[in-house]
Amino acid sequence: MDEIIIIKIGGNCIDDTETLTTFLADFAQIQQHKILVHGGGKIATELSKKLNIETKQINGRRVTDEQTLDVVTMVYAGLINKKIVAQLQKNNCNSLGLTGADANVILAHKRINNDIDYGFVGDIDKVNTAILQTLLNQNITPVFAPISHNENGVLLNTNADTIAAEIAIAFSETHKVTLVYCFEKKGLLTDVNNENSVIKNVSSVDLEQLKQKQIITQGMLPKTENILHALKNGVEKVILCNSNDILSILNGNSNFGTTFIL
Amino acid sequence: MDEIIIIKIGGNCIDDTETLTTFLADFAQIQQHKILVHGGGKIATELSKKLNIETKQINGRRVTDEQTLDVVTMVYAGLINKKIVAQLQKNNCNSLGLTGADANVILAHKRINNDIDYGFVGDIDKVNTAILQTLLNQNITPVFAPISHNENGVLLNTNADTIAAEIAIAFSETHKVTLVYCFEKKGLLTDVNNENSVIKNVSSVDLEQLKQKQIITQGMLPKTENILHALKNGVEKVILCNSNDILSILNGNSNFGTTFIL
Repeated sequence: MDEIIIIKIGGNCIDDTETLTTFLADFAQIQQHKILVHGGGKIATELSKKLNIETKQINGRRVTDEQTLDVVTMVYAGLINKKIVAQLQKNNCNSLGLTGADANVILAHKRINNDIDYGFVGDIDKVNTAILQTLLNQNITPVFAPISHNENGVLLNTNADTIAAEIAIAFSETHKVTLVYCFEKKGLLTDVNNENSVIKNVSSVDLEQLKQKQIITQGMLPKTENILHALKNGVEKVILCNSNDILSILNGNSNFGTTFIL
Repeated sequence: MDEIIIIKIGGNCIDDTETLTTFLADFAQIQQHKILVHGGGKIATELSKKLNIETKQINGRRVTDEQTLDVVTMVYAGLINKKIVAQLQKNNCNSLGLTGADANVILAHKRINNDIDYGFVGDIDKVNTAILQTLLNQNITPVFAPISHNENGVLLNTNADTIAAEIAIAFSETHKVTLVYCFEKKGLLTDVNNENSVIKNVSSVDLEQLKQKQIITQGMLPKTENILHALKNGVEKVILCNSNDILSILNGNSNFGTTFIL
């Protein structure tokens, strides 16, 4: 089975130019077939502020209205995506930036919820891997902005962690898939304030216990949901790590990051 | 020889939602292999104003400084490009949005000029058609935003007419190419105020005479430079027409637009 690595970098990596530059130089060196999914970072929020677009919230949840959708489309699919692609080209990694609308790769529907209308937020129905495989076969690395579409002309703001998980799951039918979530910490920590408390290996059984013990809380909860969902649907391995450690981990150094298996 | 049609739509078509929607529905119906190149329109200028970014000019020529480059990257490669792609998907035309940085398709260098530093403005060195051909073979229509790159991590604001001409020229080595410039008028007019004064057929000899007679002036001058450049470098036919007339013209109705041949 062919191997493929799906890597997601979060907003914090994108907001720090030095971190992003270093990460992209490392990413470019990965020899296996690979796909990058990037988050949004603070730029969209800052642009909304400058344009006096209020960040709408209902019951504490962000809502993507039409103006906000335009902002995230500009920032995620335009500014961030193309800067990443240009940087990767500089690092001799031939890449191509996409949203889920491009080549019809990620089909989604507007989130249905009886209590809250989240606006233009997408829940993913399907990932078409065929064109991605064609690109990979030509040594072109796809780079995804966190936007999908509904096939009816509407773009949808979509969680980057979820996009990475769904791409990984779609490839698991034909590939041995490693899904890597890069963020600002060194891995899953038993003590959130101690970077030396990285848990090296976590099974899905461990994961349930860590939730019960409230070691996994808050922002880590949806991330571990994505991790568990990916593992239960064919992804062989999920790694959670700092963006600086990506090459060490992929070269098999077990001293870095947290590895999740089923 | 395989046939391909390269179509450029200008800023005026993009600024008018109804015109753009109609054009994209027509464009989706074109059966031949096709590539779309879009211009910028007023949205970038409006966004710059809202963000208090001054439009810098030197000797009456616009300069693309770093802030302006960010704005055009957001608006051209993000907002406009992805809205067009989503619309085409709705019209059952599978499309993929690109800048020249994506898949390393359009290589350029920062414009060199001893008198004026235009800033981040690109002059095209090379168009790589191989990946475009791969996409076309899978019935995926490339859609270009007017941005190129220098292979060293720098995005460059690049004239959409020129991008369309250079893509057309690059394909003319292997294809019978028709290059179509859509704009708000019905074609090349002998009287700019009379839409019934369309000149149906223009040769490159005619073109020189029309310039001498000052029938071609101002904004039409750079456009006819691109047309002549394309014809002299292998493009079989260039058409200048209104965006509403594209299907009539491609179906062989000679009552619409201006056709340029060598």
